[in-house]
Amino acid sequence: MTFKVTILGSNSAIPTIRRNPTAQLVNHNERFFLVDCAEGTQLQLRKYKIKLQRINHIFISHLHGDHFFGLVGLISSMHLLGRKKELHIYGPARLKDILDIQLEASETTLAYPLIFHPLAPESRAVIYEDEKLTVSTIPLKHSIPTCGFLFKEKKGKRRIIKEMAQSLDIPVNDYPKIKNGEDFTDGTGKVYKNEEITGEPYPVRSYAYCSDTAYYEPVVPVIKDADLLYHETTFMQDMADVASAKLHSTTIEAASIAKLANVKKLIIGHFSNRYDNPMDLVIEARKVFSNTFLADDGKVFEIE
Amino acid sequence: MTFKVTILGSNSAIPTIRRNPTAQLVNHNERFFLVDCAEGTQLQLRKYKIKLQRINHIFISHLHGDHFFGLVGLISSMHLLGRKKELHIYGPARLKDILDIQLEASETTLAYPLIFHPLAPESRAVIYEDEKLTVSTIPLKHSIPTCGFLFKEKKGKRRIIKEMAQSLDIPVNDYPKIKNGEDFTDGTGKVYKNEEITGEPYPVRSYAYCSDTAYYEPVVPVIKDADLLYHETTFMQDMADVASAKLHSTTIEAASIAKLANVKKLIIGHFSNRYDNPMDLVIEARKVFSNTFLADDGKVFEIE
Repeated sequence: MTFKVTILGSNSAIPTIRRNPTAQLVNHNERFFLVDCAEGTQLQLRKYKIKLQRINHIFISHLHGDHFFGLVGLISSMHLLGRKKELHIYGPARLKDILDIQLEASETTLAYPLIFHPLAPESRAVIYEDEKLTVSTIPLKHSIPTCGFLFKEKKGKRRIIKEMAQSLDIPVNDYPKIKNGEDFTDGTGKVYKNEEITGEPYPVRSYAYCSDTAYYEPVVPVIKDADLLYHETTFMQDMADVASAKLHSTTIEAASIAKLANVKKLIIGHFSNRYDNPMDLVIEARKVFSNTFLADDGKVFEIE
Repeated sequence: MTFKVTILGSNSAIPTIRRNPTAQLVNHNERFFLVDCAEGTQLQLRKYKIKLQRINHIFISHLHGDHFFGLVGLISSMHLLGRKKELHIYGPARLKDILDIQLEASETTLAYPLIFHPLAPESRAVIYEDEKLTVSTIPLKHSIPTCGFLFKEKKGKRRIIKEMAQSLDIPVNDYPKIKNGEDFTDGTGKVYKNEEITGEPYPVRSYAYCSDTAYYEPVVPVIKDADLLYHETTFMQDMADVASAKLHSTTIEAASIAKLANVKKLIIGHFSNRYDNPMDLVIEARKVFSNTFLADDGKVFEIE
């Protein structure tokens, strides 16, 4: 089952020719989720050949412009391109007013239902759920209310052992019950225990996105053991004071969170424009957490 | 004296990799004016190596997103990049609310004075004036209140004939008076009439920007004899009915306005995404007005 993250923007506040500010696309099981939406995100989607109408859920971490200024343009383009199906937006309550005033000023009535889900960034909550996935908020520490998002698979069903299914000639109609844990009785009345004919479900996978935040240990239990963590890293360690004052993180801080949380892989991004070569930040972070990678526009991270 | 227009975006509603939606930079006498500001305009400025802090005046024609969604990002970047000097914005009154709510939500207090000048798009008015230039509104006919902008030089002073200045040894201190029309009296008491020692001022030049509009003849007297006219051309002539219904213009309509107004040169832009090759629109417009050119992102039109 697909589970991957495409980086659409990896810079902090100001867009550059090389790097757009924050946005990511999460593809889970061919469902597309947009996470943050800086100015220019709709063009990044085009550039990386992602069909924007496939996105049905958009999550906005906070109301700093480099995380949402592209949203109104994206929802307008979806409208102009003939969208009819629902679009769900999750973000701070004020975001709804910001979208409404702009649609109202342009006398635009969207041709599709826009369903807005106001978030309370300061508390943990499951905000999205389907049969295979939940998305929940990760409270963070920033200069305005901000949360990250944890994409976590639900525990799957037990898997029928192929050889057993064949040798016992289990009818396909019985599969759902067996996957749910029931035993199987064959034509002769013989009962096979569920544990004999099934194996453990696939392990659940998770992706944690920690948007703008200072070093903040309370996130550790929330993102514990995540397969993939994106953690902002605006500054190198020699600017720890500035990072702290601006409620952003350094390389070492992001890597320390990754280590404490025992995640499998760390992506760092949201770099200050002062850094010409963001690989320097990766090299520094690797001193604490070796499995650290660079967020780069267009890069795809698969979760295996 | 410099007078040129750089096209920063030439597409209609939806940005593409090839063409951004509307924005232009007018450079008059090394003063920089931004006209409309679609999403991505700050990146276009970077791309064409225009220092965004040199822009002191921004004019917004109307509140359709493809003409202003990039404004809040631009003013935020100006702030983050340390701007201290005033920025003047001219646009429909509601634009102020749209900017305010977004700055407020991000708890941003701009470090520079943003001076907002509400426009009444339905009536003609001079909205900007310096010693060499005026900018006035051009009422247009669109689905929401919309105006264009006329950049017109002020009549210059008379020009002292170089040879006369030399042969009569006119003191430099007397130049301003003579340029203002006064006669000159030499050391012997002999009077030289102003017409003998000066020539006509340079001819005034003008640039007319007709943003989104249906075919609308009342603009003709307003833009009469302009050196350069930008007129939207969303559709080719075979879609005249659609153009009319959507209050946009066709090739032939834009060219007809140019012809009626006796302008010197016409630029067409704001093309619908359905056209792969906008030169087809230019070819069609040239049937009516031969001096028609294509608006293309990055192209510079000098007014001689």
